[in-house]
Amino acid sequence: MFIWQQLSKSQQVDALARPAISDSDTLEQGVKRIINAVAENGDTALFDFTKNFDGVALDDLRLAKSQFQLAEQALSQSRKDAINTAYQQIKTFHSAQRFQDIDVETRPGVRCQLKSEAIESVGLYIPAGSAPLPSTVLMLGVPAQLAGCERVVLVCPPDKNGKLANEIIYAASICGIDEIYRIGGAQAIAALALGTQTIAAVNKVFGPGNKYVTEAKKQLSQSVPGFAIDMPAGPSELLVIADKGANPVFVAADLLSQAEHGTDSQVILLSDDEATINAVAEQLQLQLETLSRKDIAKKALAQSRLILCADIDEAALVSNLYGPEHLSLQVRDTDTLLSKVRNAGSVFVGDYSPESAGDYASGTNHVLPTYGYSKVASSLSLADFSRRYTVQTLTKYGLQSLAQTIVELTDAEGLDAHQRAVTLRVGNGNSDSIGGIECDESSVQDKGDVA
Amino acid sequence: MFIWQQLSKSQQVDALARPAISDSDTLEQGVKRIINAVAENGDTALFDFTKNFDGVALDDLRLAKSQFQLAEQALSQSRKDAINTAYQQIKTFHSAQRFQDIDVETRPGVRCQLKSEAIESVGLYIPAGSAPLPSTVLMLGVPAQLAGCERVVLVCPPDKNGKLANEIIYAASICGIDEIYRIGGAQAIAALALGTQTIAAVNKVFGPGNKYVTEAKKQLSQSVPGFAIDMPAGPSELLVIADKGANPVFVAADLLSQAEHGTDSQVILLSDDEATINAVAEQLQLQLETLSRKDIAKKALAQSRLILCADIDEAALVSNLYGPEHLSLQVRDTDTLLSKVRNAGSVFVGDYSPESAGDYASGTNHVLPTYGYSKVASSLSLADFSRRYTVQTLTKYGLQSLAQTIVELTDAEGLDAHQRAVTLRVGNGNSDSIGGIECDESSVQDKGDVA
Repeated sequence: MFIWQQLSKSQQVDALARPAISDSDTLEQGVKRIINAVAENGDTALFDFTKNFDGVALDDLRLAKSQFQLAEQALSQSRKDAINTAYQQIKTFHSAQRFQDIDVETRPGVRCQLKSEAIESVGLYIPAGSAPLPSTVLMLGVPAQLAGCERVVLVCPPDKNGKLANEIIYAASICGIDEIYRIGGAQAIAALALGTQTIAAVNKVFGPGNKYVTEAKKQLSQSVPGFAIDMPAGPSELLVIADKGANPVFVAADLLSQAEHGTDSQVILLSDDEATINAVAEQLQLQLETLSRKDIAKKALAQSRLILCADIDEAALVSNLYGPEHLSLQVRDTDTLLSKVRNAGSVFVGDYSPESAGDYASGTNHVLPTYGYSKVASSLSLADFSRRYTVQTLTKYGLQSLAQTIVELTDAEGLDAHQRAVTLRVGNGNSDSIGGIECDESSVQDKGDVA
Repeated sequence: MFIWQQLSKSQQVDALARPAISDSDTLEQGVKRIINAVAENGDTALFDFTKNFDGVALDDLRLAKSQFQLAEQALSQSRKDAINTAYQQIKTFHSAQRFQDIDVETRPGVRCQLKSEAIESVGLYIPAGSAPLPSTVLMLGVPAQLAGCERVVLVCPPDKNGKLANEIIYAASICGIDEIYRIGGAQAIAALALGTQTIAAVNKVFGPGNKYVTEAKKQLSQSVPGFAIDMPAGPSELLVIADKGANPVFVAADLLSQAEHGTDSQVILLSDDEATINAVAEQLQLQLETLSRKDIAKKALAQSRLILCADIDEAALVSNLYGPEHLSLQVRDTDTLLSKVRNAGSVFVGDYSPESAGDYASGTNHVLPTYGYSKVASSLSLADFSRRYTVQTLTKYGLQSLAQTIVELTDAEGLDAHQRAVTLRVGNGNSDSIGGIECDESSVQDKGDVA
């Protein structure tokens, strides 16, 4: 246990330090080679890599139509019900995020709009490590569907038999996705960014992945003009602020739910009550013993930080410094604390809002900024599947009324042609003649609504 | 002039090709050296680079308070009026973009919110090449002010006397900015991203710049965790769609206003009327002659494309393929055409909406996605100066009602600890005992509003 106020400045920095992300040349070069191979050999490279990395020789990259019905038939009703319920929850919250066009007459005859348009084609990367992740399919597939993206492509590495989990296929299908490719790793991201004979390139790729996937997203978003990715990725994080009234059993369970993600998961507890910290520490050991992913969680916990703060205000301050991906507020006065929280990807308020609820089914998105990016980046939302652009419509009167302003500013900036695009239309109000070019300086009487 | 339908597929691709952005190793290494120098030597490096690159030995990086009043006194009233009018226009449109919190009960006892928070500290880069750019100060400073960023820092390279333009200082001052540093180039971006003795690091940097600035933004946003930039930058672009009724004088003036930006500016005209294309071509030559930036515009025009389309629908299609930064619609039926436009940073509707209007004073932002990024990226708006995050509040009843869903999904994903964070709180509905740990499975009766 650390006591925040007894730490020096540099110890405080260390206490909130994140694990270094290995940015090795080997990784960079390895991924570059994979990308180049896909760029040069297209599908052939994808077949080769899938054989080498996933251990299966495929005949066909795309999942056959027949698999969708088979997947649905193979799943238990209770599993389908769970996926349907989560789908509905996520849909309800993301539907409420629809962008409302903004339409303002900034002065008579000058109408400015901010409008939204779905991104035409998007790719969703779904990892398949120890277990399938249908929840991630829903977190990406639901907003893509709601945004109205014309083409939604899902990629997921196959198992040794060339199969994808039934849960993945079923979840994709209820999100309206029928274009699924059985590829994973850096090669899948390269295929989505560059396109191959079978797979047309997409505009933007979403989703989590291992270090090869993350590196490929980084490289391709830098090198392929117009290609974008969702957000920078780092290890998952949870910070819990707990007061004396918090239940140590709950707090420990939450910290463990984060710790089981990976050995580099970050787990931080802040409390103003030493007894609570000790009780949580005890519960962590007790609950750890019976977890199937005990070994992973144990390693992550070894790096965990239990920090005693002077009061809950100080805890809020420390949390804001860290900027956690997930922030759990297990305190009595949640309203006051919530008002002091600045930087977090998603906030879980009160004793009955475990991170698990948001990971699966409350309705919020579980793709969140990590590694300090919660200070600048937003949680994934409907907005990420569309783009906003402006539209302006000026009447002759509207332009005339801004002419003098634009003439002054273009003078300041030395941009004649910018100025002339205005004065040739409406004059500059001083009836100067302009380099022998015929001007339209007729009196302007077409004021009135531009809408 | 090209005729779209007579071009082969590959000629069509070439006709819409953008100039290659030189991604030289020299540039990359040079900028890396500058960044490393700032990282190691802080202010000293900034003084050195300013002496070498800007030709002035400064005593102090920060602009003195006294300079603000002097700048205001030195400016003519008409210049101040113009800056004030543009400020007001931009403020009116960006004020309308305020994010409305989203607050949904996705089911009884489960409340999900999407909230917005200003990014704490932002840096605004204002170039100073041949002339000052007060318009860019306003385009970045107004949304930063409206978003409520706690700290807004402006950097701008000084002239040989260590001065900044009065217009820059005055525009900053009406945006409420008093922290201005007289630095530019890659070293300025490095200072903002990394911090020095004098300049505290910021969370996000905005603004245009030369290739060194762009490269520094790219490198630092990749290497400094939690540091973000506004958007990828490329040469400026304008695509005009003009019909038979368009005024060739206006169209040519707009194309020239784009061409004068830089020799790599992209200028494209699409029309369904050959006579219009010819008349515009003639006007281009005529108007070019009297421009002060004639040499620049001439080079850009040499790369311009005048394309004859079968009809306006085809023009819309070609424009969507290209995805221009600026799109001007000088046609009679603007409504129909506007409904077909998908990809553009900002759209200028009708004969009296020149790009110049949006560049300065209509109210829209002139920081826009270029180089094909309009297919995935948004025009700069108030949203870029804040971040959205989710908040969820579940009652015991709410969590109970989702328990079975979460249990099923955690089973599918093999995440025990995630499951237990729920079952320890409310059971799983099947009253299983959980590994000897005391569970809270009391009946749940606290339904009701979470708000």
